[in-house]
Amino acid sequence: MNFTLNVLGTASALPTTERYPSAQVLDVRGRLFMIDCGEGAQIRMRKAGISFLKIEHICLSHIHGDHIFGIFGLLSTMGMLGRSSQLNIFAPVSFGPVLDFFMAHFGEGIKFVINFVPLEMSEPEIVYENRTTELLAFPLNHRVKTFGFIIREKMPPLNIRKEAIQEYGLSLSEIGTLKRGEDVVREDSVIASSEITYRKYVPRSYAYCSDTAPFPELAQWVKGVDLMYHEATFPEELSDMAEKTFHSTTVQAARIASEAGVGRLLVGHYSSRYPSVDFFLEELRSVFPESYLAGDMDVVDIPQM
Amino acid sequence: MNFTLNVLGTASALPTTERYPSAQVLDVRGRLFMIDCGEGAQIRMRKAGISFLKIEHICLSHIHGDHIFGIFGLLSTMGMLGRSSQLNIFAPVSFGPVLDFFMAHFGEGIKFVINFVPLEMSEPEIVYENRTTELLAFPLNHRVKTFGFIIREKMPPLNIRKEAIQEYGLSLSEIGTLKRGEDVVREDSVIASSEITYRKYVPRSYAYCSDTAPFPELAQWVKGVDLMYHEATFPEELSDMAEKTFHSTTVQAARIASEAGVGRLLVGHYSSRYPSVDFFLEELRSVFPESYLAGDMDVVDIPQM
Repeated sequence: MNFTLNVLGTASALPTTERYPSAQVLDVRGRLFMIDCGEGAQIRMRKAGISFLKIEHICLSHIHGDHIFGIFGLLSTMGMLGRSSQLNIFAPVSFGPVLDFFMAHFGEGIKFVINFVPLEMSEPEIVYENRTTELLAFPLNHRVKTFGFIIREKMPPLNIRKEAIQEYGLSLSEIGTLKRGEDVVREDSVIASSEITYRKYVPRSYAYCSDTAPFPELAQWVKGVDLMYHEATFPEELSDMAEKTFHSTTVQAARIASEAGVGRLLVGHYSSRYPSVDFFLEELRSVFPESYLAGDMDVVDIPQM
Repeated sequence: MNFTLNVLGTASALPTTERYPSAQVLDVRGRLFMIDCGEGAQIRMRKAGISFLKIEHICLSHIHGDHIFGIFGLLSTMGMLGRSSQLNIFAPVSFGPVLDFFMAHFGEGIKFVINFVPLEMSEPEIVYENRTTELLAFPLNHRVKTFGFIIREKMPPLNIRKEAIQEYGLSLSEIGTLKRGEDVVREDSVIASSEITYRKYVPRSYAYCSDTAPFPELAQWVKGVDLMYHEATFPEELSDMAEKTFHSTTVQAARIASEAGVGRLLVGHYSSRYPSVDFFLEELRSVFPESYLAGDMDVVDIPQM
């Protein structure tokens, strides 16, 4: 069962030949969540072999061009490919007029339903869920209304180890009790749920935090995720610039990761000032050793355990 | 003095990993004319080493996404790079609301003047000229209002061969007469302008015809251009499809080229049906031998003669 991040673009405002603007696709058990959709995202998707029609959800962090200018082409392409299944778009309220404009001028070929879910929350909220997966959105701290996202597997139900059913001669009612995590109390003994039940897997989780300056609640909100993508537009030497533009530095991103106790930190959204961002890594790892630099077309897998 | 076409994208509606949507930049003596601006054009420009700030004019053929979805990102980038010089945009009237929308939602950083010239003509008209160069627009035959473009050098002035001035003892007034192309009539002789004047170069010309179905006037309008780019969305086997969608086949493009007596025909805007379009070339050359297939990032030079 996949839980795989495809990084399609890691540039900030100005794309380069190597880095396209922000766009990602997270494959959760074969269901695809797109996060941000910078210019050229559909071309990157083709290169990565990602099906346009399998995208079920598009999450847009904010309405700056480098995070959304790819959506016009992508929606048009979905229309031309004959998509019929509903597409959910989670985005700030301000995306409404952008979508209306697109549909009025370029939407002729769009025969599928676009379900636009405007985001307005002031703390994390579940905005979508299916049997196995939840999508949460929460506010970030940028120049315009911006939202981060957490996509995570739900806790799988408790299963009884097969051999225990015979061993203890469990009744259906007792099995139900144990599966709810409660112990079975018999006249002469107690059967502990924790001893004969297990979960099929440990739920995996991913958080996307871009664009944002640091703010007090963030670490708590992304606490313990397996993988966090956080913008690191600037290295420490440009912390003034980061503050002015409501972006983060390497060290700020790493501090959030450390405080939140995430499994791995992945950074991107690099300023185009730096032909190489290799030196970002030292700054990151001085604070949080499990830091990594995202590159365009990187694939990051979180294996099921 | 350059007269050089940079082909940035040759896909039709659906881009592929190899072919981006329509976009070109023609360098005329160091002044850059962009023609169409499909998604990813700014990334292609970077790759081709074309300066964003040197683009003086953007000509948009029609308001279909695959010809214009790159302009939002390109204008934003120009703004972020601090462009201050005026940008002319020649486009169908229907581009007006698109530009207004862009400026209202994403135009904050645009500090340069955008001079939008709406196109409405029913036959070729000069829409811009400078000392050496003319830009003409003319209607094409597509599903929505669409325009083609001719960019051509003006006829350079007549110069007198230096040695002739002394040989004939020409007066200033006689020199003026000869430079106007008129003969000087003296009491005992006639000095023919054609014999002692020359032009520094032969004017070069380029025509862009995409998207369009064939129509009777086109060959006349592009008559004798050195290079014509014409769409060839389909091969002959899909002539029905071409007719239905107001596109052209290889043979139709080649016939226009032949009838117009252009120097070279360059085709593009290929349907994504065909992983290889090599077989288009045979069809083209069976009608017009000087046919060529455009590829993304191709550079076609018309040398000065």
